Amino acid sequence: MILLTNISELVTVRSPIAGRKPGSQMNDLGIIRDAAMLIEERVIWIGTRHEAEKVIGSTPIPQYDCRGQAVLPGFVDSHTHIVFAGDRSNEYAERIRGKSYQEIAAQGGGIMATVRATRAASEEELYHSAQERILSALRHGTTTLEIKSGYGLDAESELKMLHVIDRLRRSLPVRIVATFLGAHAIPPEFADQRDQYIELLTKELIPHISRQKLATFCDVFADVGYFTTTEAQRILEAALEWGLVPKLHADEFVDVGAAQLAIAVGAASADHLLHINPATVEEFARWRTVATLLPGTAYTLRLPMPPARTLIEAGATVAIATDCNPGSCYCENMQMVISLATQLCGMTVEEAITAATLHGAAALLRETEVGSLQVGKYADFIVLDSPSYLDLAYHFGTNRVAEVWIGGKQVLTNSALQSL
Amino acid sequence: MILLTNISELVTVRSPIAGRKPGSQMNDLGIIRDAAMLIEERVIWIGTRHEAEKVIGSTPIPQYDCRGQAVLPGFVDSHTHIVFAGDRSNEYAERIRGKSYQEIAAQGGGIMATVRATRAASEEELYHSAQERILSALRHGTTTLEIKSGYGLDAESELKMLHVIDRLRRSLPVRIVATFLGAHAIPPEFADQRDQYIELLTKELIPHISRQKLATFCDVFADVGYFTTTEAQRILEAALEWGLVPKLHADEFVDVGAAQLAIAVGAASADHLLHINPATVEEFARWRTVATLLPGTAYTLRLPMPPARTLIEAGATVAIATDCNPGSCYCENMQMVISLATQLCGMTVEEAITAATLHGAAALLRETEVGSLQVGKYADFIVLDSPSYLDLAYHFGTNRVAEVWIGGKQVLTNSALQSL
Repeated sequence: MILLTNISELVTVRSPIAGRKPGSQMNDLGIIRDAAMLIEERVIWIGTRHEAEKVIGSTPIPQYDCRGQAVLPGFVDSHTHIVFAGDRSNEYAERIRGKSYQEIAAQGGGIMATVRATRAASEEELYHSAQERILSALRHGTTTLEIKSGYGLDAESELKMLHVIDRLRRSLPVRIVATFLGAHAIPPEFADQRDQYIELLTKELIPHISRQKLATFCDVFADVGYFTTTEAQRILEAALEWGLVPKLHADEFVDVGAAQLAIAVGAASADHLLHINPATVEEFARWRTVATLLPGTAYTLRLPMPPARTLIEAGATVAIATDCNPGSCYCENMQMVISLATQLCGMTVEEAITAATLHGAAALLRETEVGSLQVGKYADFIVLDSPSYLDLAYHFGTNRVAEVWIGGKQVLTNSALQSL
Repeated sequence: MILLTNISELVTVRSPIAGRKPGSQMNDLGIIRDAAMLIEERVIWIGTRHEAEKVIGSTPIPQYDCRGQAVLPGFVDSHTHIVFAGDRSNEYAERIRGKSYQEIAAQGGGIMATVRATRAASEEELYHSAQERILSALRHGTTTLEIKSGYGLDAESELKMLHVIDRLRRSLPVRIVATFLGAHAIPPEFADQRDQYIELLTKELIPHISRQKLATFCDVFADVGYFTTTEAQRILEAALEWGLVPKLHADEFVDVGAAQLAIAVGAASADHLLHINPATVEEFARWRTVATLLPGTAYTLRLPMPPARTLIEAGATVAIATDCNPGSCYCENMQMVISLATQLCGMTVEEAITAATLHGAAALLRETEVGSLQVGKYADFIVLDSPSYLDLAYHFGTNRVAEVWIGGKQVLTNSALQSL
């Protein structure tokens, strides 16, 4: 048991997940000033420093001085493809010179470039390169991280990826959640046999992955050039039968009705939503499906930003995530995503923080365990190098996270990093 | 003498400063692959590793292994206000909720908020807070840094700032260049006596600063609500008489003809240029004045981005800089500026690197000494944690700089920072 004291601002985060009112609730960060927090693996007590003295009395509890800095829940990055092999910086340079993501994919680049490299890579290579990126995410404040498969696109390589994710989950302090994304693209071997690939996914891989408990979620990339909504529905219904919870890459390039499908199948989240049908926006206020926005991807691909304000005003549960991947957004830093969400998507700093923590947890169905600092939830939090959470957006482009604690243990102190 | 070897890409940078052709020259980074570089305080020899073996023969020279990573010139951040006191995160939050920079200034915020805090701060406080930010800039690859006064706006406080800048210059490894910006705003004491303030600047401060060698440049904020172009001209002509080289904050909010004035007075640079008159763009191709763009400020203030492509296509010498300041852009990281320049201003990665190094040096009239890696120039360079310079923009939002060398000395190794 440790009592953290001398916290300038304890940002608890408390936007309700279901039945939210439109607009302002994501702005309520539930801040306690001059706060203290008693923790073991979970949060035991939260209040002001003054109250803490009364509650604790003369009980000898070790204290930890937060030096007048701000404390927030650790970030929940609910959408990443952080396990991959290869390098697509050449494609990036081509895009900057004017080529579109689709043109590059048509030349054999895009997802298939990473699929070739990932199929060729050993488990060991995949593990070590992903570990380095995940530790970087951790240094920037991420304490829960979703990781998708989807660069294998054959039985052996998809399972290789899921085994790597499982090994990362067991060995790293970050909480890792696995998503099966066999339906990331139709692999070239099945270009003329789409149905057979979908059979492979629904009849072989989903049942196997479910039995082996290799994933919590099943995701589908539903867009023009990827999977149709009909195909996506077929895959996600199989997933549901086998106990995998649906997610969707929805309407990133074109409105194909994927956001609507996400709600229809009860997906935990619909992600991207750059071209969400305005009629569907209202639906998000009525249902549990989280609208997960990935501003780093729109930024990298130089696309219009996701309609954050429209969704928030309508009452949707909006999350933000990195989408960390080697093609459309090579960034593992949630602080960067908070900056983009505030500067380019019209979100307030408070909304962006709620979206990066509690709503990210909701997108992973983990909001009763992580994503906010409440009695009974895991003591997963960050200590900034600043007394105010505002610095996460105001002082941008450098790392504001000084310490990371997960499950009540200090897993990282960056203090050495912050001074020469 | 040290021989650096095993450099995957040695990015020398070699865009000509004067007489550039429109368009493509900023893209020529003069890259040498599998390179080596022989250095003392300055660069002695550059070539391929293979050539190095022949040149050096059996001479016993200490070697340093760059581990197959990319080497680039250190960044030259040619526009900062990095010495200041106080915190304006509250204004930032108000802006995010919809207030304009001008509305906040009218309420007593803006530059005057920082002026009050800076006047009240001791030299010691100013020195230590600035040192921390400058070391952060250094960790992110900045090896030459311009710093402006301008938060004093009275004789005593402006000189206090310039003394702090001088002390930072003498004590830190980063090369620091000082700019006198007494004409940052009309101080409230002179609100109805603009002429008297300009007299103070031109008759007292500029001569004193020149005699004491406290600044190389003299800058004026020429815009609606700040100084008129007529006033700016009067101040800069006094500066020229006293050997201070003009710079201008030009046409940030409104086209007041400040870019034109910059060329007329032979300014080293005209900075911001969000509203540059299209007729003036062509002038930048004909004259030595550098067009310095500050995309971090447009990003923070949510203004349209500076017209980078128009200026580059016209043949202007375009630099990019952070504008690091507590009001409109609190960011000391040039890698962030490179990311914004490529993603939001339509610059190629190569153009952004040229703008962040050699053209930044030109904006400080230091291009014969720093800003590119050429025989005879200072050995100021960075080693990335990546084999390709593309990663500076492609893998964004985290620090790609693993080592910083200034004047042939390794002043910083980040290797401890890159792994847990």
